[in-house]
Amino acid sequence: MQPLSVEDHLAQPIVDVSPPKWHLGHTTWFFETFILKKYHQGYQEFDPTFNFLFNSYYETVGKRLLRDQRGNMTRPPLEKVYQYRAYVNQQMDVYLAGTPQTEALELLELGLNHEQQHQELFLTDFKYILGVQAFHPVYNKSFRESTIEDWEQEWVVVPEGRYDIGFEGQGFSFDNEGSRHQVFLPAFEISNKLVTNGEYLEFMQDGAYQNFEYWHSEGWAWVQEHNVNSPLYWEQQEDGWKRFSLAGLEAINPDEPLAHISYYEAYAFAEWKGLRLPTEQEWEAASNKFNWGQRWEWTNSAYLAYPGFNKAEGAVGEYNGKFMVSQMVLRGASIATPEGHSRNTYRNFFHPQLRWQFTGLRLAR
Amino acid sequence: MQPLSVEDHLAQPIVDVSPPKWHLGHTTWFFETFILKKYHQGYQEFDPTFNFLFNSYYETVGKRLLRDQRGNMTRPPLEKVYQYRAYVNQQMDVYLAGTPQTEALELLELGLNHEQQHQELFLTDFKYILGVQAFHPVYNKSFRESTIEDWEQEWVVVPEGRYDIGFEGQGFSFDNEGSRHQVFLPAFEISNKLVTNGEYLEFMQDGAYQNFEYWHSEGWAWVQEHNVNSPLYWEQQEDGWKRFSLAGLEAINPDEPLAHISYYEAYAFAEWKGLRLPTEQEWEAASNKFNWGQRWEWTNSAYLAYPGFNKAEGAVGEYNGKFMVSQMVLRGASIATPEGHSRNTYRNFFHPQLRWQFTGLRLAR
Amino acid sequence: MQPLSVEDHLAQPIVDVSPPKWHLGHTTWFFETFILKKYHQGYQEFDPTFNFLFNSYYETVGKRLLRDQRGNMTRPPLEKVYQYRAYVNQQMDVYLAGTPQTEALELLELGLNHEQQHQELFLTDFKYILGVQAFHPVYNKSFRESTIEDWEQEWVVVPEGRYDIGFEGQGFSFDNEGSRHQVFLPAFEISNKLVTNGEYLEFMQDGAYQNFEYWHSEGWAWVQEHNVNSPLYWEQQEDGWKRFSLAGLEAINPDEPLAHISYYEAYAFAEWKGLRLPTEQEWEAASNKFNWGQRWEWTNSAYLAYPGFNKAEGAVGEYNGKFMVSQMVLRGASIATPEGHSRNTYRNFFHPQLRWQFTGLRLAR
Amino acid sequence: MQPLSVEDHLAQPIVDVSPPKWHLGHTTWFFETFILKKYHQGYQEFDPTFNFLFNSYYETVGKRLLRDQRGNMTRPPLEKVYQYRAYVNQQMDVYLAGTPQTEALELLELGLNHEQQHQELFLTDFKYILGVQAFHPVYNKSFRESTIEDWEQEWVVVPEGRYDIGFEGQGFSFDNEGSRHQVFLPAFEISNKLVTNGEYLEFMQDGAYQNFEYWHSEGWAWVQEHNVNSPLYWEQQEDGWKRFSLAGLEAINPDEPLAHISYYEAYAFAEWKGLRLPTEQEWEAASNKFNWGQRWEWTNSAYLAYPGFNKAEGAVGEYNGKFMVSQMVLRGASIATPEGHSRNTYRNFFHPQLRWQFTGLRLAR
Repeated sequence: MQPLSVEDHLAQPIVDVSPPKWHLGHTTWFFETFILKKYHQGYQEFDPTFNFLFNSYYETVGKRLLRDQRGNMTRPPLEKVYQYRAYVNQQMDVYLAGTPQTEALELLELGLNHEQQHQELFLTDFKYILGVQAFHPVYNKSFRESTIEDWEQEWVVVPEGRYDIGFEGQGFSFDNEGSRHQVFLPAFEISNKLVTNGEYLEFMQDGAYQNFEYWHSEGWAWVQEHNVNSPLYWEQQEDGWKRFSLAGLEAINPDEPLAHISYYEAYAFAEWKGLRLPTEQEWEAASNKFNWGQRWEWTNSAYLAYPGFNKAEGAVGEYNGKFMVSQMVLRGASIATPEGHSRNTYRNFFHPQLRWQFTGLRLAR
Repeated sequence: MQPLSVEDHLAQPIVDVSPPKWHLGHTTWFFETFILKKYHQGYQEFDPTFNFLFNSYYETVGKRLLRDQRGNMTRPPLEKVYQYRAYVNQQMDVYLAGTPQTEALELLELGLNHEQQHQELFLTDFKYILGVQAFHPVYNKSFRESTIEDWEQEWVVVPEGRYDIGFEGQGFSFDNEGSRHQVFLPAFEISNKLVTNGEYLEFMQDGAYQNFEYWHSEGWAWVQEHNVNSPLYWEQQEDGWKRFSLAGLEAINPDEPLAHISYYEAYAFAEWKGLRLPTEQEWEAASNKFNWGQRWEWTNSAYLAYPGFNKAEGAVGEYNGKFMVSQMVLRGASIATPEGHSRNTYRNFFHPQLRWQFTGLRLAR
Repeated sequence: MQPLSVEDHLAQPIVDVSPPKWHLGHTTWFFETFILKKYHQGYQEFDPTFNFLFNSYYETVGKRLLRDQRGNMTRPPLEKVYQYRAYVNQQMDVYLAGTPQTEALELLELGLNHEQQHQELFLTDFKYILGVQAFHPVYNKSFRESTIEDWEQEWVVVPEGRYDIGFEGQGFSFDNEGSRHQVFLPAFEISNKLVTNGEYLEFMQDGAYQNFEYWHSEGWAWVQEHNVNSPLYWEQQEDGWKRFSLAGLEAINPDEPLAHISYYEAYAFAEWKGLRLPTEQEWEAASNKFNWGQRWEWTNSAYLAYPGFNKAEGAVGEYNGKFMVSQMVLRGASIATPEGHSRNTYRNFFHPQLRWQFTGLRLAR
Repeated sequence: MQPLSVEDHLAQPIVDVSPPKWHLGHTTWFFETFILKKYHQGYQEFDPTFNFLFNSYYETVGKRLLRDQRGNMTRPPLEKVYQYRAYVNQQMDVYLAGTPQTEALELLELGLNHEQQHQELFLTDFKYILGVQAFHPVYNKSFRESTIEDWEQEWVVVPEGRYDIGFEGQGFSFDNEGSRHQVFLPAFEISNKLVTNGEYLEFMQDGAYQNFEYWHSEGWAWVQEHNVNSPLYWEQQEDGWKRFSLAGLEAINPDEPLAHISYYEAYAFAEWKGLRLPTEQEWEAASNKFNWGQRWEWTNSAYLAYPGFNKAEGAVGEYNGKFMVSQMVLRGASIATPEGHSRNTYRNFFHPQLRWQFTGLRLAR
């Protein structure tokens, strides 16, 4: 737990950020609810109140704590949640040492991928919680949030043609990555580098947040309502722009990939450049021709069902499909994504104004 | 103006609805600002305050009245706005009788199409204003908002293949209809009939608004926050469901096409049916195989730029592109759409919760 | 009706301001509901929908239009409301020409005083509606909102003692002015002049709206949330402060009595001066020793029941008592108050942040 | 700290409730800021960031954490705040063992009384935090929140006359209790018992929350907006009404004094009874004739300055005066009030809708 405090596990400064304690309980609850209670005969529930406390949004599984009330959940205390975790782990060991059903193993794989998603959120939410503290606490002095891409910027050329999009083959994928299907793409070019802090600073110095013409109408309204004048976690001090990272407050490095921008900002930057964001299909079709994986990259695609999308029956069917409106797709991965979790068909999605993930952009034309 | 009152022209019951007086002034302002002031030498501005009052969102053209304050604009009085109209019409006549510039004629065409869009809004906004009056006033007793589609429901089969999407050719189109481009579509089927009131009533009787499982997560939140329990303008009376129309309060006719639903409701209905909404590309590709034009039909496509989309320079470039986020595309036309205004490449768009337009749906699979 | 437009009668820019059309209907409704329908045998109701539309807050008398929806009430049109008025007037004439009951005559007196209150609101609401128009329309060029008090400022000395407070005697009074009772007051002094624009400008120049120390905690929050930097209707132009009045935009006259301030501002000014506001009892006890009547004067008394206060039975009992919380008392009258309507026991009351009445202040110590 | 968890010290479920950790830091900060830093030569500040974190509202003393962000203050951790406390206590011991200045001793007395106020809030805030947990945690099984008043209800008769109101004499009092002054009171009667749960249940069963006529207009709006249907912490279960207390969930005891009601509810109950609340002057004048001290009792007096009220210079002058608007006075004390903290001239005050204190009522007539 160190260097984090018990209190760091409880706070919920904005509704999008869940308390780390809640993430711990919720991922454990997933295994208990969908595997142990259903498939492990004679399983003794750890605590009957936890279904209410740690359900996230599965309406099928009963009532649940309102999402915006998670920061008030002082009970159970953190150590009890760790006990819950240990108990469920141990029971999963017992169950898996027997002859587990195929369906349970499939749910196990889903549960592990689900947990990886929450591992990422755990870190980004922690960062946000530290970020609202008054005096820039340090999580880990040597933590690097990204690596400089030290090659020349070039345009990867992709010819017009039919491309296969979506997941197919061995291994795990989420339902929203299917079904695999063909699309026809006109020729396009995509950058082999992410946009950097330095490029974005130029945009800022050229009046980014003062000039409506680069922005969507609702993006411009967002800028004005919230007095946005930089990416999230940036602050201007007498000696220049700084940014809060998990290593504390640092000077902006102009060569590093840009992070913590909204879709609105990504779009406005591209407009200023006279370029555009790639669609998710373009990104996927070109993805073996550039390095990716240290930033979630905003695309110009809305999060919608692929042709032939089928959601699962029952509660796990609530996993993805019901969020397919009003969100934009991000492709790639970030420093917070567990190793091996993402792939080039992976579809991440957030509302266009959200910035607390490690979000960046890559240009196309 | 009869049977409408002066007051009917001023009210703005929700921010999405503009006062009819404002529509009158705004369409006139478009001609004055973009044509007469720029191209008609020696033109005398009708009133210098009107640029502020009747600009809608063109940030390039100066400050403007806040959109949610239009209902408080008691000055100028309605008759002055009609004088403004007459004056600008007469000046346009003078200008066009001379040797107008090509660019001005292009703007004239845009201005006429712009006016047609506001003619539609004028009617839908009037309906809304009448609809919030306490006692169901009648606009026109013989007004019919739609025609029964009295043919058998059948599935139009569309084979897999490459389809041309977007406008090309002679005649006017909006910038968002281009550029024309190819898409590859898997095989699909689309209904030759719009969903009817009767079908939707079945859905309601089967628990539409009580069962989360048909809904997007944000759709379900919308239902609960606003206590939605029917399409807009419907009300349940002792002798059954009624709906407010421009002909007053009427019994629901189960055979008529359904209207005034949100995208959320369209989607939920399709989920309940085990079917889906078409994408805008599917709709367009199949559009010559079914009748359309009496309802704006929600598609499952987000409003985004086509490949090769180019917005115009200057203020008229603000027409469409800056709204390309967080909205869904509707295809077709409605009873309120001026004759000849729409076409099968026309892209209408609204936020997913909005219902005051004549919106319906057609199923696909 | 001239120089006002039909539209001027409909708008409701803030919830506190009612549309003039509504005032016309409501005062008429009062006579119809409480007198004609109850006492005038065979009375034919003008329109059964009007009880819903023009009831203000009398829960006893049935459902009513929500207060914040009055600006959307386009129907009935204004001329119909004038017909309603003419009809009710004529019916009242008929009724009163017979042998009216005593109780009806008492209600007539209440209704006339009620109407006078709405006459005042009619004018202040009109001013507000004109005031939100973009270009300072003029109601009446020769309208003077106040008179300069051209005598020397002096302190009226009032000795310690028991004073009778509240109404007693012949003539009409509202229930909230009774019962008459004794209070004991320590010695105090009260100014023989209202605070002027010039004095308030000095306060502004001395940092009134930048310095928390003069303000109530919630007053300071109000200043900051709404960016208040002057009295209502004031605006700073290159050549100095102006204020919008019913005669249009005018330069501030430093000798005129100050108007359109909130209780918070009145209190802050007094703090800055090292003085205080009088209580309503002090004001009343001293009221025959100074001129009053051209400004509602904020006192430092909350609007609460006098000892022995009794509200009437039934709907008219809802007149005053139910507002006796969270409001402050104002004494005096204003340019908008009908001649003879007020008296030195009259208790006006508003929430502390409201400023659209002609509100000023008189200091005490 | 037991039986409370670290997390219990952090949560802020509503803005009115401060996290217990904040109370601990804030009361310590008071001594450090107003005494040690000013009067204890060579004092080493414990941590320079704490002035920002633990200042409450003293604008004079610099910027401060926004009140509604206290629940996000995960840093410093609780144990650090206890170290802060220990350090400041030890330094105060050192300072006081020397020759402390008179002014510092006066501030010490104020600081101790300030701390007692926060001790009360600490308990009521803890209760609220436990109360929002999903499953009724128990603080202390044997905790009794009040004592049954087991005597007959009688009316204490107080004759008309002049009464001295406000504090005078030896010992500590807050500035808002002065200056002592005379008031003239008509004769009145006041109950020798607090209203009980049983009496309030009768009111509820007689339609308390369904009948507008007992309520202030804004009280009735509050009932409807928040769906209020009982005092705070009450919930209806199959076997009757329960209430959450510091001893957990318990059946309502009809003989116990009522608690956790708003001013609106107190007023409505009195209206229903045909009686009224006492003014604070009546309460004080009669206070030696009945038992008081186990409930804060709503009075019908607004919180305003007494004649001759003088606030102190500088930051401590911000203690009381700036809250003298829009709040109602409560007299008495509660189970949470430290022994000896209150007195019969003590003026507590809250906004009329607040209920999380131990608030009750006593009737008058």
